[in-house]
Amino acid sequence: MLCEYRDFNEIAGAPFGVAWPQLAHLIAATPLFVKASQQAGQQGRLRFDPVATNRHLVAGLSGLGWQDRVQLPALVGPFGTAVDFALGGIVLEVQFSNYPFFANNVIRAAALWRARGTVADHPVAGLLVLAARGDLPSANSSLYYEQANRQLALLVDQGIVTVPVRLVGLGWAVGETTAILSTYADARSRTLHRSEQVRCRVTAVQRGFRIDRA
Amino acid sequence: MLCEYRDFNEIAGAPFGVAWPQLAHLIAATPLFVKASQQAGQQGRLRFDPVATNRHLVAGLSGLGWQDRVQLPALVGPFGTAVDFALGGIVLEVQFSNYPFFANNVIRAAALWRARGTVADHPVAGLLVLAARGDLPSANSSLYYEQANRQLALLVDQGIVTVPVRLVGLGWAVGETTAILSTYADARSRTLHRSEQVRCRVTAVQRGFRIDRA
Repeated sequence: MLCEYRDFNEIAGAPFGVAWPQLAHLIAATPLFVKASQQAGQQGRLRFDPVATNRHLVAGLSGLGWQDRVQLPALVGPFGTAVDFALGGIVLEVQFSNYPFFANNVIRAAALWRARGTVADHPVAGLLVLAARGDLPSANSSLYYEQANRQLALLVDQGIVTVPVRLVGLGWAVGETTAILSTYADARSRTLHRSEQVRCRVTAVQRGFRIDRA
Repeated sequence: MLCEYRDFNEIAGAPFGVAWPQLAHLIAATPLFVKASQQAGQQGRLRFDPVATNRHLVAGLSGLGWQDRVQLPALVGPFGTAVDFALGGIVLEVQFSNYPFFANNVIRAAALWRARGTVADHPVAGLLVLAARGDLPSANSSLYYEQANRQLALLVDQGIVTVPVRLVGLGWAVGETTAILSTYADARSRTLHRSEQVRCRVTAVQRGFRIDRA
Protein backbone atom coordinates (compact mmCIF):
# COMPACT_ATOMS: atom_id res chain seq x y z
CA MET A 1 0.00 0.00 0.00
CA LEU A 2 0.93 3.63 -0.29
CA CYS A 3 1.40 5.65 2.84
CA GLU A 4 1.70 9.21 4.02
CA TYR A 5 2.19 10.39 7.57
CA ARG A 6 2.11 13.38 9.86
CA ASP A 7 4.03 13.84 13.09
CA PHE A 8 2.60 15.52 16.18
CA ASN A 9 4.60 16.63 19.23
CA GLU A 10 7.93 15.99 17.56
CA ILE A 11 10.77 15.64 20.01
CA ALA A 12 14.55 15.38 19.75
CA GLY A 13 15.69 11.78 19.55
CA ALA A 14 13.14 10.68 16.94
CA PRO A 15 11.33 7.90 18.84
CA PHE A 16 10.15 6.26 15.61
CA GLY A 17 13.65 6.06 14.14
CA VAL A 18 14.19 2.37 14.76
CA ALA A 19 10.68 1.12 14.17
CA TRP A 20 9.62 3.27 11.23
CA PRO A 21 11.77 2.11 8.30
CA GLN A 22 10.75 -1.52 8.88
CA LEU A 23 7.09 -0.60 9.23
CA ALA A 24 7.17 1.58 6.10
CA HIS A 25 8.69 -1.33 4.20
CA LEU A 26 5.99 -3.69 5.46
CA ILE A 27 3.27 -1.24 4.39
CA ALA A 28 4.81 -0.86 0.93
CA ALA A 29 4.77 -4.67 0.58
CA THR A 30 1.14 -4.98 1.70
CA PRO A 31 -1.27 -5.83 -1.15
CA LEU A 32 -4.72 -4.34 -1.56
CA PHE A 33 -7.17 -6.55 0.35
CA VAL A 34 -10.80 -6.14 -0.67
CA LYS A 35 -14.21 -7.57 0.19
CA ALA A 36 -17.67 -7.16 -1.29
CA SER A 37 -19.58 -4.20 0.08
CA GLN A 38 -22.74 -5.15 2.00
CA GLN A 39 -24.16 -1.62 2.11
CA ALA A 40 -27.49 -0.92 0.48
CA GLY A 41 -26.99 0.27 -3.10
CA GLN A 42 -23.35 -0.83 -3.09
CA GLN A 43 -23.80 -4.56 -3.75
CA GLY A 44 -21.13 -5.99 -6.01
CA ARG A 45 -18.73 -3.12 -5.45
CA LEU A 46 -15.56 -3.82 -3.57
CA ARG A 47 -14.20 -2.06 -0.54
CA PHE A 48 -11.12 -2.05 1.63
CA ASP A 49 -10.92 -5.20 3.79
CA PRO A 50 -9.71 -4.21 7.27
CA VAL A 51 -9.76 -7.76 8.66
CA ALA A 52 -7.44 -9.26 6.03
CA THR A 53 -5.19 -6.20 6.05
CA ASN A 54 -4.91 -6.45 9.81
CA ARG A 55 -4.02 -10.16 9.60
CA HIS A 56 -1.31 -9.37 7.08
CA LEU A 57 0.11 -6.64 9.34
CA VAL A 58 0.02 -8.90 12.41
CA ALA A 59 2.06 -11.54 10.58
CA GLY A 60 4.50 -9.00 9.20
CA LEU A 61 4.99 -7.11 12.45
CA SER A 62 5.49 -10.32 14.42
CA GLY A 63 8.26 -11.21 11.99
CA LEU A 64 9.87 -7.83 12.72
CA GLY A 65 9.92 -8.44 16.46
CA TRP A 66 6.82 -6.46 17.47
CA GLN A 67 4.73 -8.01 20.24
CA ASP A 68 1.02 -8.06 19.52
CA ARG A 69 -1.88 -7.70 22.00
CA VAL A 70 0.42 -6.20 24.65
CA GLN A 71 -1.34 -5.89 27.97
CA LEU A 72 -1.95 -2.37 29.24
CA PRO A 73 -0.77 -1.46 32.75
CA ALA A 74 -3.51 -1.25 35.39
CA LEU A 75 -3.31 2.57 35.27
CA VAL A 76 -5.10 2.67 31.91
CA GLY A 77 -7.02 -0.59 32.36
CA PRO A 78 -10.41 1.19 32.16
CA PHE A 79 -9.56 2.10 28.54
CA GLY A 80 -9.13 -1.47 27.33
CA THR A 81 -7.03 -4.54 27.93
CA ALA A 82 -4.23 -4.34 25.37
CA VAL A 83 -2.55 -2.24 22.72
CA ASP A 84 -2.33 -3.74 19.24
CA PHE A 85 1.50 -3.84 19.09
CA ALA A 86 4.55 -2.60 20.97
CA LEU A 87 8.26 -2.51 20.22
CA GLY A 88 10.59 -0.95 22.74
CA GLY A 89 8.59 2.01 24.02
CA ILE A 90 6.65 2.52 20.78
CA VAL A 91 2.96 1.66 20.85
CA LEU A 92 1.32 0.86 17.50
CA GLU A 93 -2.45 0.92 17.07
CA VAL A 94 -4.13 -0.22 13.84
CA GLN A 95 -7.36 1.83 13.67
CA PHE A 96 -9.60 0.37 10.99
CA SER A 97 -12.58 0.16 13.36
CA ASN A 98 -15.35 2.57 14.33
CA TYR A 99 -14.23 6.15 14.81
CA PRO A 100 -14.56 6.52 18.62
CA PHE A 101 -11.85 3.90 19.21
CA PHE A 102 -9.34 6.43 17.92
CA ALA A 103 -10.02 8.93 20.73
CA ASN A 104 -10.08 6.10 23.28
CA ASN A 105 -6.72 4.71 22.14
CA VAL A 106 -4.98 8.06 21.66
CA ILE A 107 -6.12 9.28 25.05
CA ARG A 108 -4.90 6.19 26.88
CA ALA A 109 -1.47 6.61 25.25
CA ALA A 110 -1.56 10.31 26.19
CA ALA A 111 -2.33 9.39 29.80
CA LEU A 112 0.41 6.74 29.88
CA TRP A 113 2.91 9.27 28.54
CA ARG A 114 1.97 11.90 31.13
CA ALA A 115 2.11 9.32 33.93
CA ARG A 116 5.49 8.02 32.66
CA GLY A 117 3.91 4.59 32.35
CA THR A 118 5.36 1.53 30.67
CA VAL A 119 4.23 -0.95 28.05
CA ALA A 120 5.95 -4.35 28.04
CA ASP A 121 8.48 -2.96 30.56
CA HIS A 122 9.55 -0.02 28.39
CA PRO A 123 8.64 3.59 29.20
CA VAL A 124 6.19 4.79 26.56
CA ALA A 125 8.16 6.84 24.00
CA GLY A 126 5.66 7.41 21.22
CA LEU A 127 2.49 6.30 19.49
CA LEU A 128 2.17 5.09 15.90
CA VAL A 129 -1.35 4.92 14.51
CA LEU A 130 -2.30 3.34 11.17
CA ALA A 131 -5.58 4.35 9.53
CA ALA A 132 -6.99 3.96 6.03
CA ARG A 133 -7.27 7.09 3.91
CA GLY A 134 -10.75 8.43 3.32
CA ASP A 135 -10.59 7.86 -0.44
CA LEU A 136 -10.52 4.07 0.08
CA PRO A 137 -14.13 2.84 0.10
CA SER A 138 -14.77 1.55 3.64
CA ALA A 139 -17.66 0.76 5.96
CA ASN A 140 -19.70 3.70 7.24
CA SER A 141 -18.41 5.15 10.52
CA SER A 142 -14.95 3.57 10.08
CA LEU A 143 -12.23 5.94 11.18
CA TYR A 144 -10.29 7.42 8.27
CA TYR A 145 -6.89 9.09 8.19
CA GLU A 146 -8.02 12.64 7.43
CA GLN A 147 -10.54 12.57 10.29
CA ALA A 148 -7.91 11.23 12.70
CA ASN A 149 -5.59 13.97 11.50
CA ARG A 150 -8.12 16.68 12.34
CA GLN A 151 -8.86 15.10 15.73
CA LEU A 152 -5.19 14.92 16.64
CA ALA A 153 -4.50 18.47 15.44
CA LEU A 154 -7.15 19.77 17.84
CA LEU A 155 -6.02 17.62 20.77
CA VAL A 156 -2.39 18.70 20.28
CA ASP A 157 -3.31 22.38 19.75
CA GLN A 158 -5.30 22.36 22.99
CA GLY A 159 -2.46 20.74 24.94
CA ILE A 160 -4.45 17.58 25.63
CA VAL A 161 -2.20 15.12 23.79
CA THR A 162 1.50 15.69 24.47
CA VAL A 163 2.88 12.26 23.55
CA PRO A 164 4.78 12.13 20.22
CA VAL A 165 2.46 10.63 17.61
CA ARG A 166 3.09 9.56 14.03
CA LEU A 167 -0.25 9.18 12.26
CA VAL A 168 0.04 7.02 9.15
CA GLY A 169 -2.52 6.99 6.33
CA LEU A 170 -2.72 3.91 4.12
CA GLY A 171 -3.99 4.23 0.57
CA TRP A 172 -3.92 2.94 -2.97
CA ALA A 173 -3.50 4.51 -6.41
CA VAL A 174 -5.93 4.85 -9.30
CA GLY A 175 -5.52 2.18 -11.99
CA GLU A 176 -5.67 -1.58 -12.53
CA THR A 177 -4.17 -3.77 -9.86
CA THR A 178 -4.12 -7.30 -8.47
CA ALA A 179 -5.98 -7.50 -5.17
CA ILE A 180 -6.87 -10.21 -2.64
CA LEU A 181 -10.63 -10.67 -2.47
CA SER A 182 -11.88 -12.37 0.71
CA THR A 183 -15.33 -13.72 1.54
CA TYR A 184 -16.55 -14.00 5.14
CA ALA A 185 -19.27 -16.01 6.86
CA ASP A 186 -21.44 -12.86 7.05
CA ALA A 187 -21.14 -9.07 6.94
CA ARG A 188 -19.83 -8.70 10.50
CA SER A 189 -17.84 -11.92 10.62
CA ARG A 190 -14.09 -12.39 10.80
CA THR A 191 -14.43 -16.06 9.79
CA LEU A 192 -12.79 -16.37 6.39
CA HIS A 193 -14.64 -18.50 3.83
CA ARG A 194 -12.44 -17.95 0.81
CA SER A 195 -9.60 -15.78 -0.42
CA GLU A 196 -8.61 -15.34 -4.09
CA GLN A 197 -6.46 -13.12 -6.28
CA VAL A 198 -8.52 -10.92 -8.60
CA ARG A 199 -7.85 -8.04 -10.99
CA CYS A 200 -9.44 -4.77 -9.88
CA ARG A 201 -9.82 -1.30 -11.24
CA VAL A 202 -9.53 1.67 -8.86
CA THR A 203 -11.19 4.80 -10.24
CA ALA A 204 -11.65 8.28 -8.84
CA VAL A 205 -15.31 9.17 -8.32
CA GLN A 206 -16.93 12.23 -6.83
CA ARG A 207 -15.89 11.47 -3.24
CA GLY A 208 -12.83 9.24 -3.08
CA PHE A 209 -12.27 6.02 -5.01
CA ARG A 210 -14.39 3.23 -6.34
CA ILE A 211 -13.07 -0.35 -6.68
CA ASP A 212 -14.56 -2.80 -9.20
CA ARG A 213 -13.52 -6.14 -10.64
CA ALA A 214 -11.51 -5.43 -13.81
CA MET B 1 -34.21 5.03 38.62
CA LEU B 2 -31.73 5.47 41.43
CA CYS B 3 -28.72 7.63 40.84
CA GLU B 4 -25.37 8.45 42.32
CA TYR B 5 -22.84 10.91 41.00
CA ARG B 6 -19.27 12.09 41.25
CA ASP B 7 -17.94 15.53 40.40
CA PHE B 8 -14.59 16.15 38.73
CA ASN B 9 -12.84 19.52 38.40
CA GLU B 10 -15.26 21.26 40.75
CA ILE B 11 -15.26 25.01 40.36
CA ALA B 12 -16.82 27.91 42.18
CA GLY B 13 -20.21 28.84 40.75
CA ALA B 14 -21.54 25.26 40.55
CA PRO B 15 -22.28 25.03 36.82
CA PHE B 16 -24.79 22.21 37.34
CA GLY B 17 -26.84 24.18 39.86
CA VAL B 18 -29.68 25.11 37.54
CA ALA B 19 -29.84 21.95 35.47
CA TRP B 20 -29.20 19.31 38.09
CA PRO B 21 -32.30 19.34 40.35
CA GLN B 22 -34.59 18.97 37.33
CA LEU B 23 -32.47 16.21 35.84
CA ALA B 24 -32.29 14.35 39.18
CA HIS B 25 -36.08 14.53 39.42
CA LEU B 26 -36.47 13.18 35.89
CA ILE B 27 -34.12 10.27 36.69
CA ALA B 28 -36.03 9.47 39.88
CA ALA B 29 -39.26 9.35 37.84
CA THR B 30 -37.76 7.09 35.16
CA PRO B 31 -39.06 3.50 35.30
CA LEU B 32 -36.94 0.42 34.75
CA PHE B 33 -36.97 -0.36 31.01
CA VAL B 34 -35.94 -3.92 30.14
CA LYS B 35 -35.57 -6.12 27.08
CA ALA B 36 -34.84 -9.80 26.59
CA SER B 37 -31.14 -10.63 26.51
CA GLN B 38 -29.92 -12.02 23.18
CA GLN B 39 -26.57 -13.23 24.49
CA ALA B 40 -25.73 -16.92 24.33
CA GLY B 41 -26.67 -18.65 27.57
CA GLN B 42 -28.77 -15.64 28.69
CA GLN B 43 -31.95 -16.29 26.68
CA GLY B 44 -35.08 -15.40 28.58
CA ARG B 45 -33.28 -13.23 31.10
CA LEU B 46 -33.95 -9.53 31.03
CA ARG B 47 -31.49 -6.72 30.80
CA PHE B 48 -31.43 -2.93 30.93
CA ASP B 49 -32.96 -1.41 27.78
CA PRO B 50 -30.84 1.58 26.74
CA VAL B 51 -33.01 2.47 23.70
CA ALA B 52 -36.28 2.84 25.64
CA THR B 53 -34.52 4.58 28.55
CA ASN B 54 -32.97 7.02 26.12
CA ARG B 55 -36.35 7.73 24.49
CA HIS B 56 -37.85 8.41 27.89
CA LEU B 57 -35.02 10.80 28.77
CA VAL B 58 -35.29 12.61 25.42
CA ALA B 59 -38.98 13.25 26.03
CA GLY B 60 -38.42 14.34 29.63
CA LEU B 61 -35.46 16.60 28.90
CA SER B 62 -37.24 18.27 25.98
CA GLY B 63 -40.06 19.08 28.38
CA LEU B 64 -37.50 20.70 30.69
CA GLY B 65 -36.17 22.97 27.96
CA TRP B 66 -33.06 21.00 26.98
CA GLN B 67 -32.26 21.00 23.27
CA ASP B 68 -31.46 17.57 21.86
CA ARG B 69 -29.00 16.68 19.07
CA VAL B 70 -27.24 20.03 19.39
CA GLN B 71 -24.77 20.55 16.57
CA LEU B 72 -21.11 20.70 17.53
CA PRO B 73 -19.03 23.69 16.42
CA ALA B 74 -16.67 23.02 13.50
CA LEU B 75 -13.72 23.00 15.92
CA VAL B 76 -14.70 19.56 17.26
CA GLY B 77 -16.51 18.38 14.11
CA PRO B 78 -14.05 15.48 13.61
CA PHE B 79 -15.36 14.01 16.90
CA GLY B 80 -18.98 13.75 15.76
CA THR B 81 -21.85 15.89 14.59
CA ALA B 82 -23.85 16.64 17.74
CA VAL B 83 -24.01 16.37 21.51
CA ASP B 84 -27.01 14.56 22.97
CA PHE B 85 -28.40 17.57 24.87
CA ALA B 86 -27.48 21.10 25.89
CA LEU B 87 -28.99 23.65 28.26
CA GLY B 88 -27.25 26.97 28.72
CA GLY B 89 -23.57 26.02 28.66
CA ILE B 90 -24.12 22.53 30.07
CA VAL B 91 -23.58 19.60 27.71
CA LEU B 92 -25.33 16.34 28.58
CA GLU B 93 -24.27 13.04 27.06
CA VAL B 94 -26.21 9.83 27.63
CA GLN B 95 -23.60 7.05 27.37
CA PHE B 96 -25.36 3.71 27.11
CA SER B 97 -23.40 2.71 24.01
CA ASN B 98 -20.07 0.97 23.43
CA TYR B 99 -17.32 2.05 25.80
CA PRO B 100 -15.03 4.00 23.40
CA PHE B 101 -17.74 6.63 22.81
CA PHE B 102 -17.15 7.81 26.36
CA ALA B 103 -13.53 8.84 25.70
CA ASN B 104 -14.55 10.37 22.37
CA ASN B 105 -17.32 12.46 23.93
CA VAL B 106 -15.44 13.47 27.06
CA ILE B 107 -12.41 14.53 25.07
CA ARG B 108 -14.40 16.67 22.66
CA ALA B 109 -15.98 18.47 25.64
CA ALA B 110 -12.52 18.85 27.19
CA ALA B 111 -11.21 20.38 23.94
CA LEU B 112 -14.21 22.71 23.67
CA TRP B 113 -13.66 23.86 27.24
CA ARG B 114 -9.94 24.54 26.68
CA ALA B 115 -10.70 26.39 23.43
CA ARG B 116 -13.48 28.41 25.14
CA GLY B 117 -15.88 27.06 22.54
CA THR B 118 -19.64 27.34 22.52
CA VAL B 119 -22.56 24.95 22.18
CA ALA B 120 -25.87 26.45 21.01
CA ASP B 121 -24.35 29.93 21.45
CA HIS B 122 -23.39 29.44 25.11
CA PRO B 123 -19.78 29.05 26.28
CA VAL B 124 -19.30 25.48 27.48
CA ALA B 125 -19.55 25.51 31.29
CA GLY B 126 -19.65 21.84 32.21
CA LEU B 127 -20.34 18.29 31.10
CA LEU B 128 -22.98 15.96 32.53
CA VAL B 129 -22.66 12.29 31.60
CA LEU B 130 -25.25 9.61 32.34
CA ALA B 131 -24.18 5.98 32.37
CA ALA B 132 -25.75 2.78 33.69
CA ARG B 133 -24.21 1.22 36.77
CA GLY B 134 -22.27 -2.00 36.24
CA ASP B 135 -24.64 -4.04 38.38
CA LEU B 136 -27.46 -3.57 35.84
CA PRO B 137 -27.25 -6.43 33.33
CA SER B 138 -26.32 -4.83 29.99
CA ALA B 139 -24.89 -5.76 26.60
CA ASN B 140 -21.22 -6.76 26.52
CA SER B 141 -18.87 -3.84 25.92
CA SER B 142 -21.47 -1.23 26.95
CA LEU B 143 -19.92 1.52 28.98
CA TYR B 144 -20.80 1.34 32.67
CA TYR B 145 -20.60 3.99 35.36
CA GLU B 146 -17.75 2.52 37.41
CA GLN B 147 -15.56 2.17 34.31
CA ALA B 148 -16.33 5.74 33.24
CA ASN B 149 -15.47 6.83 36.78
CA ARG B 150 -12.04 5.20 36.60
CA GLN B 151 -11.40 6.63 33.12
CA LEU B 152 -12.29 10.15 34.24
CA ALA B 153 -10.26 9.89 37.44
CA LEU B 154 -7.16 9.12 35.38
CA LEU B 155 -7.81 11.83 32.78
CA VAL B 156 -8.37 14.43 35.51
CA ASP B 157 -5.37 13.25 37.56
CA GLN B 158 -3.15 13.56 34.51
CA GLY B 159 -4.41 17.05 33.70
CA ILE B 160 -5.97 15.95 30.41
CA VAL B 161 -9.59 16.76 31.25
CA THR B 162 -10.01 20.13 32.96
CA VAL B 163 -13.69 20.82 32.21
CA PRO B 164 -16.04 20.39 35.21
CA VAL B 165 -17.78 17.02 34.85
CA ARG B 166 -20.61 15.46 36.80
CA LEU B 167 -20.70 11.74 36.08
CA VAL B 168 -24.06 10.20 36.95
CA GLY B 169 -24.62 6.47 37.48
CA LEU B 170 -28.14 5.11 36.99
CA GLY B 171 -29.22 1.97 38.82
CA TRP B 172 -32.03 0.01 40.37
CA ALA B 173 -32.60 -1.72 43.70
CA VAL B 174 -32.95 -5.40 44.56
CA GLY B 175 -36.57 -6.55 44.91
CA GLU B 176 -39.81 -6.87 42.95
CA THR B 177 -40.77 -4.02 40.67
CA THR B 178 -42.93 -3.06 37.73
CA ALA B 179 -40.86 -2.62 34.57
CA ILE B 180 -41.50 -1.77 30.92
CA LEU B 181 -40.55 -4.70 28.68
CA SER B 182 -39.94 -3.79 25.05
CA THR B 183 -39.50 -6.04 22.04
CA TYR B 184 -37.55 -4.91 18.98
CA ALA B 185 -37.43 -6.03 15.35
CA ASP B 186 -34.09 -7.77 16.04
CA ALA B 187 -31.18 -7.71 18.48
CA ARG B 188 -29.56 -4.57 17.06
CA SER B 189 -32.76 -2.79 16.04
CA ARG B 190 -34.29 0.37 17.49
CA THR B 191 -37.62 -0.40 15.79
CA LEU B 192 -40.08 -1.06 18.59
CA HIS B 193 -42.46 -4.01 18.06
CA ARG B 194 -44.22 -4.01 21.41
CA SER B 195 -44.01 -2.49 24.86
CA GLU B 196 -45.78 -3.87 27.97
CA GLN B 197 -45.76 -3.48 31.72
CA VAL B 198 -44.46 -6.57 33.51
CA ARG B 199 -43.56 -7.55 37.05
CA CYS B 200 -39.86 -8.27 37.51
CA ARG B 201 -37.58 -9.48 40.24
CA VAL B 202 -34.12 -7.95 40.62
CA THR B 203 -31.74 -10.19 42.55
CA ALA B 204 -28.08 -9.86 43.50
CA VAL B 205 -25.92 -12.52 41.90
CA GLN B 206 -22.18 -13.07 41.96
CA ARG B 207 -21.38 -10.09 39.73
CA GLY B 208 -24.09 -7.47 39.79
CA PHE B 209 -27.82 -8.04 39.40
CA ARG B 210 -30.04 -10.43 37.55
CA ILE B 211 -33.51 -9.45 36.30
CA ASP B 212 -36.25 -12.06 35.74
CA ARG B 213 -40.01 -11.96 35.20
CA ALA B 214 -41.66 -12.22 38.64
